Amino acid sequence: MYTKLEKTKGKSLYIALYESISADIASGRIKNGTRLPARRALALSLGVSQNTVDSAYKMLMDTGYIISIPRRGYIVSFNSPSNDTSAPWETSAHEQVVFSPNGIDISHINRVSYAKVMRDIVYNDGTDIFSYVDKGGEFELRSAISKYLYSFRGVKCSPDSIIIGAGAEYLLCSLAVLFPPECSFIFENPCDTHFYRTLAAYRIATDILPAGTGRFDIDALNASSGSILFIDPDARFPRNEPLNEDERRAAAEWANAADGRYIIENCCDSEIIYEPHEPIFNLDTGKVIYLGSFSRSFSPALKTSYMILPPELLSVWKSKHVYYYALTSKTEQFAIAEFLNNGGFTKHYKAVRKLYKEKRELLAESLISGFGSSIDLQDNHGSTYLTARIKEHTADEIKQLARLNGVKLFSMRSFNIDPASAIDDDRLVIGIGDLSREDIKIGVQLISRNFK
Amino acid sequence: MYTKLEKTKGKSLYIALYESISADIASGRIKNGTRLPARRALALSLGVSQNTVDSAYKMLMDTGYIISIPRRGYIVSFNSPSNDTSAPWETSAHEQVVFSPNGIDISHINRVSYAKVMRDIVYNDGTDIFSYVDKGGEFELRSAISKYLYSFRGVKCSPDSIIIGAGAEYLLCSLAVLFPPECSFIFENPCDTHFYRTLAAYRIATDILPAGTGRFDIDALNASSGSILFIDPDARFPRNEPLNEDERRAAAEWANAADGRYIIENCCDSEIIYEPHEPIFNLDTGKVIYLGSFSRSFSPALKTSYMILPPELLSVWKSKHVYYYALTSKTEQFAIAEFLNNGGFTKHYKAVRKLYKEKRELLAESLISGFGSSIDLQDNHGSTYLTARIKEHTADEIKQLARLNGVKLFSMRSFNIDPASAIDDDRLVIGIGDLSREDIKIGVQLISRNFK
Repeated sequence: MYTKLEKTKGKSLYIALYESISADIASGRIKNGTRLPARRALALSLGVSQNTVDSAYKMLMDTGYIISIPRRGYIVSFNSPSNDTSAPWETSAHEQVVFSPNGIDISHINRVSYAKVMRDIVYNDGTDIFSYVDKGGEFELRSAISKYLYSFRGVKCSPDSIIIGAGAEYLLCSLAVLFPPECSFIFENPCDTHFYRTLAAYRIATDILPAGTGRFDIDALNASSGSILFIDPDARFPRNEPLNEDERRAAAEWANAADGRYIIENCCDSEIIYEPHEPIFNLDTGKVIYLGSFSRSFSPALKTSYMILPPELLSVWKSKHVYYYALTSKTEQFAIAEFLNNGGFTKHYKAVRKLYKEKRELLAESLISGFGSSIDLQDNHGSTYLTARIKEHTADEIKQLARLNGVKLFSMRSFNIDPASAIDDDRLVIGIGDLSREDIKIGVQLISRNFK
Repeated sequence: MYTKLEKTKGKSLYIALYESISADIASGRIKNGTRLPARRALALSLGVSQNTVDSAYKMLMDTGYIISIPRRGYIVSFNSPSNDTSAPWETSAHEQVVFSPNGIDISHINRVSYAKVMRDIVYNDGTDIFSYVDKGGEFELRSAISKYLYSFRGVKCSPDSIIIGAGAEYLLCSLAVLFPPECSFIFENPCDTHFYRTLAAYRIATDILPAGTGRFDIDALNASSGSILFIDPDARFPRNEPLNEDERRAAAEWANAADGRYIIENCCDSEIIYEPHEPIFNLDTGKVIYLGSFSRSFSPALKTSYMILPPELLSVWKSKHVYYYALTSKTEQFAIAEFLNNGGFTKHYKAVRKLYKEKRELLAESLISGFGSSIDLQDNHGSTYLTARIKEHTADEIKQLARLNGVKLFSMRSFNIDPASAIDDDRLVIGIGDLSREDIKIGVQLISRNFK
C-alpha cells in the first residue's frame, strides 16, 4: 500500500508516512470508510519501527483524516476542504451565492464613529497604550463589559471575574487545561464544529452527545461520562432551537449534581438573536462560565473575547496562567471599552437584529414563492439563518441541485462532528448574514428553478 | 496535616484539597523542601478517594507548588510571587528602584508617527478592517515581515511560511501540539522562564539542560532525550552570552542528526541587541523555527508576534489548526505592516539600541564608582542588562542588602526553572531597560552605600 516511504533529509519518517497517507486520502485514492492496515503489520511491511507508524496514525487522527474505532481499527473519515464543513469565507470562485449560516453583515458598522473612538485613544492616551498589558485584560474593558452585561442581560459579575483573550477559541483552550486531563468536554452533535476541533487540536478529550432531533437530550447528558458541557443555549447552532427555561434549569441541575461539572455557556451569538432568554449563568450556581465576543455581533476582525469565571476556577486560572496571555492590543481593548460605554455597540446590535430579521423575512418570502407548498420553514428568531425542509427531497439532493446552479447550501449534516453517527435531521440551514437583498433573491431563484 | 477538608457547595473535593495545601505553602506554613504525605496515606487519613488526592497533587505540580522526584515523592518547591521570579511589572510599592532585566523603554516611541499610521488605516481602509481575518495573519503584514527580516538579518522566507499570532507564547503552544505528545522541549537553565511555564501550563513535556556556567553545553544537548530545542541564541537570557558561530553550527548539526528534531530560535530580543549574530535559521537546514515579536523591541502592548515555519511543519500546522487562530485585530496588523514598510520600526530600533547602550554604560560607570575594585562586570552588548559579581559576596547577600535599601535586584538564580538543581553561577543580572538615568544613579547609590 505505501511502499515509497523514503528517508528525506530533515524529514522525520513518521511525517513522511503521515504525508503519504494523508495525500492519498485527500486525493481520494484512499476512500472514506477504508480500514488502514494494523500498526504492527504496516511497520513490518515498511521496515520501520511501530513507533513511527503510531506517530503517523496519531497525527492522522489529530488532523481529522482517520478515526479509531474499538475492535475495528483505524478508519478513514475525511471531510475534504471542498466539502461544506470548510470555513464560510473559504468559497470557490464558481459559486455565485453562498447561504452561509456563519456569515455576518459588516456593511452597517458605523465606521466613522468607531474610527473616532480609535483616534481619540491613540492621540489622547499618552504613552499608556504602549505600556504593559494587564494579563487578564485592561480593567477599563472588563469594567465596561461588566456594566454592559448587567444592563443587556441582567448578568451580575465583577470586572475581576472577567478574563479577556484573543478569540473565544483561545479562551476555551486556556480554560480546558484548568481541569484534570481525564476530564472530557461534552458537545451536542451537530454544532458549531470549530470549538470542538480546536479542543481536538489541543488534545483535549471530548464526548459527543448522540445526534437527536429537536429538543436538548437531558437523558444523554446525564448518561455522558464527560463533565464540561459546552453549549450555546440561545440558538444551539445550527438547530436554531433555544433551550427553554426548564431545560436551562435541568442543565444547571446536572452541573450541580456532581463535583467538577461545569457548563460553558457560549453566548457569542446572543447579541444578534432577536429575543435571547435569560442566561443559565443567571441561575447563580457557581458552575457556569459565560463566554462572549464581538466577532459575530460586530466584526470578525476584532479578536477581543471574554469569559466570566466562577471564583474557584478564577483562582486556578490565575495560578496556572501566570505568564501566558494571548491578548489583543491595548488600543483595541480601550476602543471596545469606550464603544461599549458610549452605547456604540448597543446601537449597532439593535440595527443588525432588525436587519437580520428583515433579511430572514425576505428569505422566507422568496423560498415560499420559489418552492410553494413543498417547503416547510422554521424561524425561531435565529440570528442569521433559518432552517427548512423541502418535501420529498433529502437535504443532500437539494444541496447537489443547488451546487449545479452555482449556489452553496448547508444542512444539519454539514455540522456533523461525528462521522460515525448519522444525523436524524434532514433540514437545510440557510444563512443570510452576509448576503445583500439582491443576492438572497437571486440565490433562491437559482435553487428553486428546477421546482417550477 | 489537612483535617479541615470540607465539601463546599459547587466546589470539587480535589480543588478544596488543592486550595488548602497551596494556601499553606504560599503562606509559608509548609516550607520548601517538605515531603508531602504519600497519596494513599493522605487519601485514607482524609477519607477521600485516591483519585481526589492524585488530581490535587497533579494541580499542585502544574501550578508550580510541588515537584515529583522519583523514589522521594512529592516535594514542596515554591517560588512565592514576592520572590524575584515574579513578572517585572509586579513590584511592591516599597521598592524605589527595580533593576529588572525584562524592563523596556517605551518613553522613546514616536507616538505621533505610530498614531498617524493607525488613523490612516482606520479612516482609509474602508470596511476591510472589519472583514474576516486571514487565519495565518494578514498578507500585508506577513509580506512586510518577510522584507524586513531579509534586510535586517538576511533571513530568507516567503510570506506564506510566516504565521502571525497574539503573543509568542501562543505561537509556541500552537507549535507544540504539532509534535507527538511524547516529544519534549529542551530549555537551558536558567532562562526566560515564562516560555517554559507556558508549556508546563499546557501540559507539554519539557527537558531541562543541567545548569552550566558560561558556554552552551553541546554534550548535554546530545545527551538529552528531548527533541525540540528552545533557545535565544543572541543572548541566552539571562546569561548575555550569545552562541558563537561554532555553537550555532553544532546546534544545527544536532537537529539534523535525527528525525523529528527542531530548534525554535527565539529572536524576540534580537532587534535590541547591539550586534546580533547571523541566525541559526540562515544555515537553511529546514529544522529551525524563527520566532519574533514586537513586544520587547517596541511595546509590550502590541501583542502581534510571528514565526517562520519550515515547509513540513507548515503543512502540519495548516491541517491541525483549521479553525484556531488567536490573532490581534486587523487594524493592528495593518498598522504594524505599514510601520515596518515606512521604516518606523527600524528607526525606533536604532534609537533604543543607542539608548540602552548609553544606559548600560552609565550603569557600569555608577557600579564601578560605587563598588570600586570589588565588582567584576560583563557586558556583551546585551540589550537591556549586564551581569556582575561582587567579590567576596554571594548574589543572594547583595540582593538581600539591596532589598533592605529599597532596591530590587535579580541574579542568575532568579531565573532558575529547576529548583532541584543548584545553579553554579553567582552573577547578578542588572537591567536598566525601563529606568531613567536618574533612577540608575540613585539605585546604584542605594545598593553600594554599605560598601563605602
